Amino acid sequence: MGQYQPPLRDMQFVLHELLQVEDQLAGMPRHAETNRELIDQIIEEGGKFCAEVIFPLNQVGDNEGCQWNNGEVSTPTGFKEAYRQYCEAGWPSLTCDPDFGGQGLPQVVHNVLYEMLNSSNLSWTMYPGLSHGAYECIHAHGSDELKKDYLPKLVSGEWTGTMCLTEPHCGTDLGILRTKAEPGADGAYLITGTKIFISSGEHDMAENIVHLVLARLPDAPAGTKGISLFAVPKFIPNHDGTLGPRNAAVCGSIEHKMGIHGNSTCVMNFDSAQGWLLGQPHKGLQAMFVMMNAARLGVGMQGLGLTEIAYQNSLAYARERLQSRALTGAKAPDKVADPIIVHPDVRRMLLTQKAYAEAGRAFSYFVALELDRSLDHPDEAARKEADDVLTLLIPIIKAFLTDNAFDCTNLGMQILGGHGFISEWGMEQYVRDARIAQIYEGTNTIQSLDLLARKVLADQGARLKQFGRRIESFVIAHKDDPAMAEFIAPLADLAEKTQKLTMEIGMKGMQNPDEVGAAAVPFMKVAGHLVFAYFWARMARVALEKQDSGDDFYRAKLATARYYFSKLLPETAYWIRVARAGAEPLMALDADLF
Amino acid sequence: MGQYQPPLRDMQFVLHELLQVEDQLAGMPRHAETNRELIDQIIEEGGKFCAEVIFPLNQVGDNEGCQWNNGEVSTPTGFKEAYRQYCEAGWPSLTCDPDFGGQGLPQVVHNVLYEMLNSSNLSWTMYPGLSHGAYECIHAHGSDELKKDYLPKLVSGEWTGTMCLTEPHCGTDLGILRTKAEPGADGAYLITGTKIFISSGEHDMAENIVHLVLARLPDAPAGTKGISLFAVPKFIPNHDGTLGPRNAAVCGSIEHKMGIHGNSTCVMNFDSAQGWLLGQPHKGLQAMFVMMNAARLGVGMQGLGLTEIAYQNSLAYARERLQSRALTGAKAPDKVADPIIVHPDVRRMLLTQKAYAEAGRAFSYFVALELDRSLDHPDEAARKEADDVLTLLIPIIKAFLTDNAFDCTNLGMQILGGHGFISEWGMEQYVRDARIAQIYEGTNTIQSLDLLARKVLADQGARLKQFGRRIESFVIAHKDDPAMAEFIAPLADLAEKTQKLTMEIGMKGMQNPDEVGAAAVPFMKVAGHLVFAYFWARMARVALEKQDSGDDFYRAKLATARYYFSKLLPETAYWIRVARAGAEPLMALDADLF
Repeated sequence: MGQYQPPLRDMQFVLHELLQVEDQLAGMPRHAETNRELIDQIIEEGGKFCAEVIFPLNQVGDNEGCQWNNGEVSTPTGFKEAYRQYCEAGWPSLTCDPDFGGQGLPQVVHNVLYEMLNSSNLSWTMYPGLSHGAYECIHAHGSDELKKDYLPKLVSGEWTGTMCLTEPHCGTDLGILRTKAEPGADGAYLITGTKIFISSGEHDMAENIVHLVLARLPDAPAGTKGISLFAVPKFIPNHDGTLGPRNAAVCGSIEHKMGIHGNSTCVMNFDSAQGWLLGQPHKGLQAMFVMMNAARLGVGMQGLGLTEIAYQNSLAYARERLQSRALTGAKAPDKVADPIIVHPDVRRMLLTQKAYAEAGRAFSYFVALELDRSLDHPDEAARKEADDVLTLLIPIIKAFLTDNAFDCTNLGMQILGGHGFISEWGMEQYVRDARIAQIYEGTNTIQSLDLLARKVLADQGARLKQFGRRIESFVIAHKDDPAMAEFIAPLADLAEKTQKLTMEIGMKGMQNPDEVGAAAVPFMKVAGHLVFAYFWARMARVALEKQDSGDDFYRAKLATARYYFSKLLPETAYWIRVARAGAEPLMALDADLF
Repeated sequence: MGQYQPPLRDMQFVLHELLQVEDQLAGMPRHAETNRELIDQIIEEGGKFCAEVIFPLNQVGDNEGCQWNNGEVSTPTGFKEAYRQYCEAGWPSLTCDPDFGGQGLPQVVHNVLYEMLNSSNLSWTMYPGLSHGAYECIHAHGSDELKKDYLPKLVSGEWTGTMCLTEPHCGTDLGILRTKAEPGADGAYLITGTKIFISSGEHDMAENIVHLVLARLPDAPAGTKGISLFAVPKFIPNHDGTLGPRNAAVCGSIEHKMGIHGNSTCVMNFDSAQGWLLGQPHKGLQAMFVMMNAARLGVGMQGLGLTEIAYQNSLAYARERLQSRALTGAKAPDKVADPIIVHPDVRRMLLTQKAYAEAGRAFSYFVALELDRSLDHPDEAARKEADDVLTLLIPIIKAFLTDNAFDCTNLGMQILGGHGFISEWGMEQYVRDARIAQIYEGTNTIQSLDLLARKVLADQGARLKQFGRRIESFVIAHKDDPAMAEFIAPLADLAEKTQKLTMEIGMKGMQNPDEVGAAAVPFMKVAGHLVFAYFWARMARVALEKQDSGDDFYRAKLATARYYFSKLLPETAYWIRVARAGAEPLMALDADLF
C-alpha cells in the first residue's frame, strides 16, 4: 500500500525561509497572531492525522468504491469514521469565520493541510473539500437567516456541500443549461432538472448535504446572463438546528469511472426541490465565481498532493529495487545488482517529480498567501494588488499543477515498471486519480483560454506585466551575483520571450480570434514555466545562502534547481514554437475531412 | 461503447501508394503471388471480423476481467467463442510455414491485421499474439520432433503460447533470474521456479498452452550467459496429437491491474515441470531474441491500434457534441451551440492523434515489409540491409509508437471531457490499456538504451547513417521542388541535427557511460521524429501529386502533414536541449539526499 510522510521540512522551507509567512501575516490584523510556532504545530498535527487516519483508507476506497442503493450512497469502509474524527478534531473549521464557529486561520494553512489530505486520499478529501466551497458561497451571498441556519453546520462538518453545474448536454458551456427555478412559497424556489458529475452528491458521511445549484428563473434572459444560484438542502432544516422534511433532490445513480472511486460522482435529480436564492437573480455565475479562485487553487493542490505521493513511493522503490549494474560500474557490489536509483533515466524521472513537487509547493503556498492578502490585508491597494496576482495565477495553478501531476504519477508508474501497473502497489491508482484533475473545475484548455484571453490579453497584458515586474526586480537584485547567474539568465530570458510572445499573440488575435484559441495551451505551458523558473530561482537563492550550513537539505535544493533549469525549463522552446505556428495549421482542414 | 471502422483507405494508401507493397513482394519468390487484390481482400475480411466479432467484446472484457479459480482461469464472456471463430477462419495461420499448415503470407499483412485487432480489443488480441511468438521460436529452435508435435497446433490456434521471462526479483535484469532446469528422463528437463506477469499464462480459450521459459541449467555460468530456453506445455502432448498428462506448470494467481483486464496476467509456478530445450544450452536469450523483433513490432502495433481507435471515437464526439460558439462566430447558428470540432484546441488534439496514427501506420507497415525482406528476399545483401534497418528501427517502433498511443488516448479523453473519465463511454479504457505498452516487452527506457547504446553507438553510427542515406536521397530528389520545400527543409535540418547530436553523445559517452544513459530517452524522441518526419515528407509528396485528383483524401493528408511539421516536430528542439544538458544534472545528487 505504499507510504506517506508529510514533507514537513520542505513545507517549512517554503513557508518560513522562502515566503516569510509569519511576517506576511503580521501585516494582516486578523492573522497577526498566527505565528510560526502555531503554523508548524497545526501542520504537524494535520500531517499526523493524514498519515495515520486518511492515508490508510486510500486503497480501500479505490477497491470498494461507492455503492448506490435506491437513492442512497454508501462510502467505502472507514470513510465515515475518519470523517467523524476529522470533524471532532475541528479540521473543517480551520479558516472559517469565528462568527459561525470557525477558527479564523489563514488560507495558507488550509492549503498546506489540503496538500497533505490530497496526498493521503484524494477521494476522501473531496467530501470536505467541496463543503468548504459551499460554505464560502453561502457566507458571501446567503441571507442572514440562511447563514444562521447553514453556516455553523458546514463549519462543524455536520453537513457537507456540493456544486451542481453540469447537465447532460452542457459542461463547459453553462449558457445553455436548462434546470428551472420557479418561485414557491415563503421565499423559496422550486428547482427542477438533472445535474450530472456531482462530486459528493450523495453519501453517508454527514447528516445533511447542501447542493449549490445553478438554474434559470422563469423570466431569465438566454445565455449566461440568465443563470441564478440556489442552495438546495437534502433535508430542509428547521430554524432550531434540527432537520425537517426530505427535499426532492435525489441521487439517480453514480458513475463508474477511471479513478477517484471512493468519491461518489452522482446524477442528481431535482424534482420541484425547494431551494433558496443566493445572491441576485440572474447573477448566479458571478455568485459562484467568488469561490472559483479557492476551488481552482484547491484542484491545483490535488495535483501537488498526488505529485508528492507519487514521488515518495517511486523514490522508495528506486532505492530498494535491485536491477542491473550502474553504467559506470557496480555501486553495490555486495548485492546481486545495484538499486535502480543509480541509473540516469530513473534519476531523470525522480528529479522531474521532485522539481515539480517542490516548485508546485512554493507556487501554491505563495498563491494561498496572496489569497489571504486579498481577503485580509488592511490596505485596499494591497488587497487589489493581491487580487490581480490571483486573477492571473489561478488558471496556471489549476492547469499547470494538474498536468504536472499526471506526468509525475506516470513517471512513478514507469519507475516501478510492471509493478507500477499492478493495483497492489498503489501507483496506478495515483495515475487514475490524477487524471480527473485535468478535466473538472474547467478543463485545462478552458483554464488556458481563461489565462490568455481574459487574464492576459483583456487588459493588454497589464496583469502579466505587473507580475513580470516582480521577476524583473528579482533579476535586477541578483544579476551581478555570479553564483546566481545560472538561474537568473534563463529566468530573464524566458520573461522577455514571454512578453514578446504575448504581444505577438495579441496582435494576431485582433485580426483572428482563432489565433488566441490556437495559442492558449502552449501559452499556458510557457507561463507555467515562467512562474516555476521564478520560484526555483528564489529557492536557489535561499539555498545558496545556506549551502554551507551543514544541512544537506540546501544541497539537494540546489541540485534540484539545477535539474529544473537544465532539463525541464527548455520545454518552453517547444511551446513557444507551437504558439508561433499559429491557427492556420489547425483550422485548414474542413471538419468533414478529418 | 463507441465505434470502430477499419481505416481501409489509409491502409491502402500506405500499402499501395506509399510503399508499393505489390512491387516489393514481387521481388521475393515466396510472396511473388501476393498481389494487391489478395492483400486488400484479406484486410477487408479481417477488418470485418475485427469490427463485428472482436470489437464488441472489448468493453465486456474490461468490465468482467478474468477469473481465477483454483489454478484455472476463465476469460470474459464471449472471448472463447470469438477465438474459436478466429481459428476456424484460419487467421492464426496467416504468415505461418505451409509445412506446418500455415498460409505463408507476408509479415506486412499480419501487421495490418494486428493493427485492426489491437484497435478492436487489445486484451483479446494478446492471446493469439503471444502464441505467434511461441510459434516463431519453436520454428526457429525446436527439434524436428518438437516442431512436428507443436507447430501444427500453434498454427491452427488449437494451442496458445506464452513467454515466461520475469521473476519477482527480476524483469529488466534477466541475468539474475533463478528458475532452475535439471536434466530429467527422455531428453526432458525438470523446470522449477516462479514466473510473474505472464500474459495469457492460463485461460480457457485453447486446449493446451505452451510456455517458453527461461531457466538455468545446473552447470550454467552466472549472468545472462547462463540462461537456457525451454518449451513447457500445460499438457504434455503425445506424438499422435492427443494430450497426455497435466504438467506441473500451474497458475498461482492472476494480477489486478490498471488495464488489459480481459487478458490474464499470471503468476506461474513451475514445480519440476517437464520442459524441452530450445536452441543451445546457455543460449536461451539469443534463442528468444529471434522473436524479439516481431514481438516489439507487435507492441508498436498495439500503440498504433489504440491511437487509431482513440482518434475515431474522439472525432465522432467532437463532431456531435455541441458546446460554446466558435471564436470567429457561430458555425451552426441553427443549433444551441457549435460542434466542438470548431474550437482550435480540440482540433489540436484531433490532429495530433491523426498525425501520429497515420505516421505510425506508414512507419510500422514499412518496418513489417523490411521484416519480410529480411526473411524472404533472395539476395543476401538485401536481407542483410533489411536486417540492419530493422535492428535500428525496432526499438523506435516499440517506444515511440507506445508513447504516442498513451498521449493520444489521453487526448481522446480530454476531448470527451468528463465523459472521457466515465467508463460508459469507453475512452478511459483505452488510456488504461495503452499504459502497459510503455512498460512490457522492455520498458521504453530500455528501448531507448538499446537504440542509442547498442544500435547506434556500438557501430559508430553506421546503421543510423545507412538509414540517414535514405533520407538524404529523398531530400536530394525533392529539394528543388518548391511545393516540397516546407517538408524537405525541416526534415533535412533534423537529419543533420540528429547526426551531430549522435556524434556529441558518442564522444561524451566514451568519457563517461552515464552520458549515454542520460541521453537515451531524449535521443529516442529525436530519432522517432526523424523517422516520422521522413514518412510525413514521403506521404506529402504522394499527396501533392494527387491533390488535384478530386479525392479529398489527399487534401486531408497534406493538411495533416503540415500540422505535423509545424506543431509536433518542433518538440525535437526541446529533446535536443535535454540530451545536450548531459548527465551532470542527473547524477549530482547523492541517492540519500533525494
